[in-house]
Amino acid sequence: MREECGIFGITAIDNASLHVRLGLFELQHRGQESCGIATSHDSRLHCKTRMGLVMNSLTDEVLAKLPGNLAIGHTRYSTAGGTGIQNAQPFLAMTKYGQLAIAHNGNLTNADQLKPQLIANGAIFQSTSDTEVVLHLIAQSSKKSLIGAIKEAMRKIRGAYCLLFLTKNSVLAVRDPRGIRPLVIGKLPERGYVFASEKCALRHSNAEFIGDVKHGEIVIATKNSLKRHRFSKSGTPSHPCVFEKVYFARPHYTERFNSGVRLAKEYSHIEADIVIGVPDSGNIAALGFAEASGIRYGIGLTRSHYTGRSFIEPTQAKRGTAVELKLSPVEEVIRGNRVIVVDDSLVRGTTSKKIIRMLRKAGAIAVYFLLASPQIKHPCYDGVDIPDRSQLIAVGRTNEEIAKEIEADGVGYLSLQGLLQACGESETVQHCTGCLDNRRFSEELIQIAT
Amino acid sequence: MREECGIFGITAIDNASLHVRLGLFELQHRGQESCGIATSHDSRLHCKTRMGLVMNSLTDEVLAKLPGNLAIGHTRYSTAGGTGIQNAQPFLAMTKYGQLAIAHNGNLTNADQLKPQLIANGAIFQSTSDTEVVLHLIAQSSKKSLIGAIKEAMRKIRGAYCLLFLTKNSVLAVRDPRGIRPLVIGKLPERGYVFASEKCALRHSNAEFIGDVKHGEIVIATKNSLKRHRFSKSGTPSHPCVFEKVYFARPHYTERFNSGVRLAKEYSHIEADIVIGVPDSGNIAALGFAEASGIRYGIGLTRSHYTGRSFIEPTQAKRGTAVELKLSPVEEVIRGNRVIVVDDSLVRGTTSKKIIRMLRKAGAIAVYFLLASPQIKHPCYDGVDIPDRSQLIAVGRTNEEIAKEIEADGVGYLSLQGLLQACGESETVQHCTGCLDNRRFSEELIQIAT
Amino acid sequence: MREECGIFGITAIDNASLHVRLGLFELQHRGQESCGIATSHDSRLHCKTRMGLVMNSLTDEVLAKLPGNLAIGHTRYSTAGGTGIQNAQPFLAMTKYGQLAIAHNGNLTNADQLKPQLIANGAIFQSTSDTEVVLHLIAQSSKKSLIGAIKEAMRKIRGAYCLLFLTKNSVLAVRDPRGIRPLVIGKLPERGYVFASEKCALRHSNAEFIGDVKHGEIVIATKNSLKRHRFSKSGTPSHPCVFEKVYFARPHYTERFNSGVRLAKEYSHIEADIVIGVPDSGNIAALGFAEASGIRYGIGLTRSHYTGRSFIEPTQAKRGTAVELKLSPVEEVIRGNRVIVVDDSLVRGTTSKKIIRMLRKAGAIAVYFLLASPQIKHPCYDGVDIPDRSQLIAVGRTNEEIAKEIEADGVGYLSLQGLLQACGESETVQHCTGCLDNRRFSEELIQIAT
Amino acid sequence: MREECGIFGITAIDNASLHVRLGLFELQHRGQESCGIATSHDSRLHCKTRMGLVMNSLTDEVLAKLPGNLAIGHTRYSTAGGTGIQNAQPFLAMTKYGQLAIAHNGNLTNADQLKPQLIANGAIFQSTSDTEVVLHLIAQSSKKSLIGAIKEAMRKIRGAYCLLFLTKNSVLAVRDPRGIRPLVIGKLPERGYVFASEKCALRHSNAEFIGDVKHGEIVIATKNSLKRHRFSKSGTPSHPCVFEKVYFARPHYTERFNSGVRLAKEYSHIEADIVIGVPDSGNIAALGFAEASGIRYGIGLTRSHYTGRSFIEPTQAKRGTAVELKLSPVEEVIRGNRVIVVDDSLVRGTTSKKIIRMLRKAGAIAVYFLLASPQIKHPCYDGVDIPDRSQLIAVGRTNEEIAKEIEADGVGYLSLQGLLQACGESETVQHCTGCLDNRRFSEELIQIAT
Repeated sequence: MREECGIFGITAIDNASLHVRLGLFELQHRGQESCGIATSHDSRLHCKTRMGLVMNSLTDEVLAKLPGNLAIGHTRYSTAGGTGIQNAQPFLAMTKYGQLAIAHNGNLTNADQLKPQLIANGAIFQSTSDTEVVLHLIAQSSKKSLIGAIKEAMRKIRGAYCLLFLTKNSVLAVRDPRGIRPLVIGKLPERGYVFASEKCALRHSNAEFIGDVKHGEIVIATKNSLKRHRFSKSGTPSHPCVFEKVYFARPHYTERFNSGVRLAKEYSHIEADIVIGVPDSGNIAALGFAEASGIRYGIGLTRSHYTGRSFIEPTQAKRGTAVELKLSPVEEVIRGNRVIVVDDSLVRGTTSKKIIRMLRKAGAIAVYFLLASPQIKHPCYDGVDIPDRSQLIAVGRTNEEIAKEIEADGVGYLSLQGLLQACGESETVQHCTGCLDNRRFSEELIQIAT
Repeated sequence: MREECGIFGITAIDNASLHVRLGLFELQHRGQESCGIATSHDSRLHCKTRMGLVMNSLTDEVLAKLPGNLAIGHTRYSTAGGTGIQNAQPFLAMTKYGQLAIAHNGNLTNADQLKPQLIANGAIFQSTSDTEVVLHLIAQSSKKSLIGAIKEAMRKIRGAYCLLFLTKNSVLAVRDPRGIRPLVIGKLPERGYVFASEKCALRHSNAEFIGDVKHGEIVIATKNSLKRHRFSKSGTPSHPCVFEKVYFARPHYTERFNSGVRLAKEYSHIEADIVIGVPDSGNIAALGFAEASGIRYGIGLTRSHYTGRSFIEPTQAKRGTAVELKLSPVEEVIRGNRVIVVDDSLVRGTTSKKIIRMLRKAGAIAVYFLLASPQIKHPCYDGVDIPDRSQLIAVGRTNEEIAKEIEADGVGYLSLQGLLQACGESETVQHCTGCLDNRRFSEELIQIAT
Repeated sequence: MREECGIFGITAIDNASLHVRLGLFELQHRGQESCGIATSHDSRLHCKTRMGLVMNSLTDEVLAKLPGNLAIGHTRYSTAGGTGIQNAQPFLAMTKYGQLAIAHNGNLTNADQLKPQLIANGAIFQSTSDTEVVLHLIAQSSKKSLIGAIKEAMRKIRGAYCLLFLTKNSVLAVRDPRGIRPLVIGKLPERGYVFASEKCALRHSNAEFIGDVKHGEIVIATKNSLKRHRFSKSGTPSHPCVFEKVYFARPHYTERFNSGVRLAKEYSHIEADIVIGVPDSGNIAALGFAEASGIRYGIGLTRSHYTGRSFIEPTQAKRGTAVELKLSPVEEVIRGNRVIVVDDSLVRGTTSKKIIRMLRKAGAIAVYFLLASPQIKHPCYDGVDIPDRSQLIAVGRTNEEIAKEIEADGVGYLSLQGLLQACGESETVQHCTGCLDNRRFSEELIQIAT
Repeated sequence: MREECGIFGITAIDNASLHVRLGLFELQHRGQESCGIATSHDSRLHCKTRMGLVMNSLTDEVLAKLPGNLAIGHTRYSTAGGTGIQNAQPFLAMTKYGQLAIAHNGNLTNADQLKPQLIANGAIFQSTSDTEVVLHLIAQSSKKSLIGAIKEAMRKIRGAYCLLFLTKNSVLAVRDPRGIRPLVIGKLPERGYVFASEKCALRHSNAEFIGDVKHGEIVIATKNSLKRHRFSKSGTPSHPCVFEKVYFARPHYTERFNSGVRLAKEYSHIEADIVIGVPDSGNIAALGFAEASGIRYGIGLTRSHYTGRSFIEPTQAKRGTAVELKLSPVEEVIRGNRVIVVDDSLVRGTTSKKIIRMLRKAGAIAVYFLLASPQIKHPCYDGVDIPDRSQLIAVGRTNEEIAKEIEADGVGYLSLQGLLQACGESETVQHCTGCLDNRRFSEELIQIAT
């Protein structure tokens, strides 16, 4: 499973692009294929996109060509649209509302339906990205103001999305009416604001977290002000993706710890000597499990710091596959013990099998594989790249069959109820769990706001 | 002075992209900043653009992603529009007439006038290239057919241009009504056709030269046929850029040799021991001069093969400037002699001064600098990058003053009449000599063709 | 502090270089500046060295030029000798004993004394590495056999070292008489042997750990046999570097956990809400501390996977220093808590200060900084790169002064006795603790072995 | 055929490495695989070697690490010894005479005979280059002075060589007793001296040519003085390689022009309309031919500036081989004409055949291929890389058979006598023509000089 993108915007600060670079660096777990920054300086927009990691490709030299104190940025893992530099964002375009840059996290589900009419009206599509649809909807609008055109466009598109727009004197943030993907607001110490996919990206700018962009909201930040508009009916519950908390977004320590606690309650019958996590995301749930179960926590798997994106996986021979190089067993923790391994989720099962073999080779006398989330059985329509159902290990298999498949002595999943409780489900926050139970919340929430 | 671009298209041949690569290689003197190829395969267009030289950047790996037996390509030196990969051509776009790729050599003079209306109609501009204007004119057309839309667009644009379009089953070639930039047609041995900026690009495909795309003509090549349409009034004279023959386009041996012959007649009073050319373009005129004057021809300057595009010019200290590294004097030819040096043209004079100093250091006792073209005094509005008038050495200086400036014992220019005669001026071919005498031919030639 | 090198050798296995690459990958924390492999094939030695990380620079293409079933390899952090490819190992030389490759982990303390005589005898030194001294001692020997020449050379050199030699049909492993640096032996499943700086490097070859190369020992592995020779008096205690266990070598889980336990006993008076480790090495000791103290363990700092060796540190502005990018605070763990941070050691204190500031910014109400080792006050003469005394924070400062310097609410070091107990000090294993208490064990252990 | 190396040294000038870089740039036709510079500064030698072209690899950054006002440099095409950075020169070594750097142009014929004794004496060979033999001979000498040791070494080695040595305060230049390879001396405008493989390398330093290093001579340049020593008997004739003048060394305009004149006399019976040269070296002889024969000279082949060393030759398909991309025919010169093509030499004939086909395709009605040198039939023992006899087209074939092979209407070689006359053969200058007639001059010239 892969998240698709991270976005970051900032206003009213010198060398805005330096801040965007640091923000994107903190969001890189959301996409590490390409990155880019657009800035506004002297009423003119500048934009640079690059393939590769943030710090390696958005060098000081590149930033020198991105002056200005207003900026947005994007780091990307491709979902809709192919890869390649022509799909790297932000996109910069001249429109009837002036120059406009856009950065997008999410997935439009009706792009293919919208395109023919746009083309018939004279649009030319130069990329395969669904983000270009948003630009054309705005460019072909007959509204007087940009904000009017954006509202109109938002009412036409469907899917999960967070968008940042840069104009010559403002940054606009938009979140879809269900609030599937995250987008937070920070306030800078002096003046100005920050938008970011996750809270963790605020710290290098010393920005104070002041809340989320709400679902169905457009927030406009200028030098001194923050104005909030709605483009969908207010008062509806939000439907955040539950996997942002389980897996994608950084820490969410409480939710993950709690899911480990719940997991311990649901699997209190397993007898084991040690509980370990699969780094990094499994460790926090493992700690929760240990505390609730009384079974000792150990660091039984370590993660190599030499298998990052620049790591070239060897092609020759079978030896040394990526997982075997990425993770090492700690024999002193494993040998002679019955081991509970906690991971965040189980998709295909290929990695898990290798981990279990690794632990047995290191001396484990039993290996129980527990997941801090339920069985993944359905596709995601809202921007997460989930393999085809035929590849999902939980489709058409009992837990016993899964255990056999991955060579574990036992496999256990957290119940859906357990997960929702750990994540704080409530009347106003009804998580999207489509990939787990196929529950889909209506997108027909969109009503003309005042 | 710099030419801007070379274009090449081919139909009905296996691995069309291999042919385009070789064609672009031969056109690389017209632009070496970026290059690209678009192909059509199974009713789908593919396009790859790269920064850098043809052979180094359009590698076998890149070509493997460009299948098909119809293709166009482009090699570029930036004029209008900034540099960078987003301006590299061909451009590929989805339009109401289907997928369309475009490659452009030339310069539109009314792009800025056309843009506002296109934008008001909903267009978004994603590059700074004037070529995007052509795409939008077509995309916003209300004509039934692509050919109708292209004709309509051509009647709106002004300037010098040659265009190649690729559709899923044809290549279309267009040349402006004055015929400023060159575009030739070749016929492949079996079936299929080639379009290229210059004849020299035909040889690797064994294509036979069958004539020019005429001024004001649209030529459509498919698998088996070649159809010619007009979009401007027929019967007008063509106005080819005289500097294509003097300097940009490859060989034009006859015109250059003849200009040397004419130069010899105009400067028959100079007494010298040896005549040499500035490589490479000056050598042919120098041979003509030698033959007509009876003064012996020598290879007095050689050009290094190590100062190509990948050559990194040293920044440190004054020593070893580019010209001094690029050219070497042949002392055995120079020492003790009165030397006539023939070059194609004189722009700023900085290079010439260094050449003259180099020759004196190598023992020349007199250096006469003769140009196979008249004084350059005016800007070019049709796609050639000429420095600002303040930098043109011929503006506001007599030949004596120029000689003093470049430290020559004498300077002589070919007369305009001499040049035109050497280049074959006639009633039907009236060269554009705007940079020499500011003569501008009306662009208002465009009439609705049948 | 930086370890200098990792070495790996293997015999009697197809594609030996593939195994060496994986072994070096696992040893890369010991040196990531350059790497290399030498192999023996058909009585001829081959050698390739490269700058950069193992997987990125010892590519399949490089390995294709390293055939054979006997090989040694080296991964390097420069200590003695400057950096650069000419100092990358293995070194390959033709000597009177035939071709010989050498890989060295350690530091010779008398290289400068030995060089003049070698040079007077006709040696030429082509690198600045002390390893070349070993080669010349062997090359100038008058012994009949290579093993005799190596023994003679080992009796002349002083310092800490582990050496691997490759000949056309064997790998020889040598460890200094004090056993300062580690070197282990593994047995392959079928036939053949492995030598490696650390046990963790054995796993990819499925080699079984069968013990250490003993201090003062030369072990010769051929296709089928393992022969052990001594070149120093037997029966002396070994003096392993205590910092290999605290910091350099991989896991040593038990020692680190125990040092945390001891730390908890020595600092039982500190009242805190949470104990966290500085990743990665501080985490294990923090776990030990938590278990012994009853204070809850939390993952309060996470380490970025995007700051590896290919990470380009931004130079512009003060923002985003390496530590601030490498480590992130987990606010949910930190905020509102009195935090104990456990790290392995404290050298200059610059990083610690930044970590403490980061924790306070994330809401810590008190930060106690505890070290799982005593104060570092002295240089290392045996191959570890310790900064000048003037830069060591523990030199001339009380713990209170150190706390003030790094802005902690308190600083505590583990006692030397505590560390030694945690590391298993005994009559036969007397750790080298020179950097802590300046205790130096005599090198005059070397006696002619039978 | 390929020359192997170029060398350059300079004394007593600020930023000596800048001058070496420019000197090596001018010598790059002698070797473009690797390059390097050694300098002396404050009694310490520095050395950097790189793979690749001079200007691209010896960047300003590299030069910043090469301070000093004494330097030597080397540019290399590998002959003896494999390729790779470990064979790149200069070599820098610490010897009993202090630090010593060496740069070598040539080929030692008795290196394999000298090595065993050097190794038995304790030498270790770290490269496969014969240059290392020279260093060891010096290092193992028992002479008091370096100059004595060099003389002793020179008397032991055989073959063709020019050597430059750098010590902390001087540059020493050595040329073999037969004077096979060239080495010239220049005098700087103020103080100090230059040594270079060819005169053309002097110009960027404004050095005045003051003669050759004589065969069998050692010339020592310090800050202020130039001292000349002999290590072989004086008064013997020199035996310069005739192909340096025909092909390798830059211009030699007079010799090449004269060889064309002689060729015209020997082939006065050929009736043709135009004579052209194969660029670049054939052009000068073609001019000579034209002047002597009265047949008009034309530029019938042009050389691409885009096929330098960074040019990546396409591997796919047969189209576009290197020669066809490198050379273009000038149709206006060729079409309808009987063409004489002059080239410097004929080795395998593969390139010639392609040229002849190219000319016929461009309309030549007859093509006569004339060579400004005799048939190459023998190997070179003195440093030129000549293919195996089985590949030499002139071995075992009459001129008629060769013409048929390369598809020419006729082939003619310059006679040996003609070539020697053109090159200035005399009693004191007896050219080495070993590759033409197998004539070998005795190397036993070496006598103890005073």
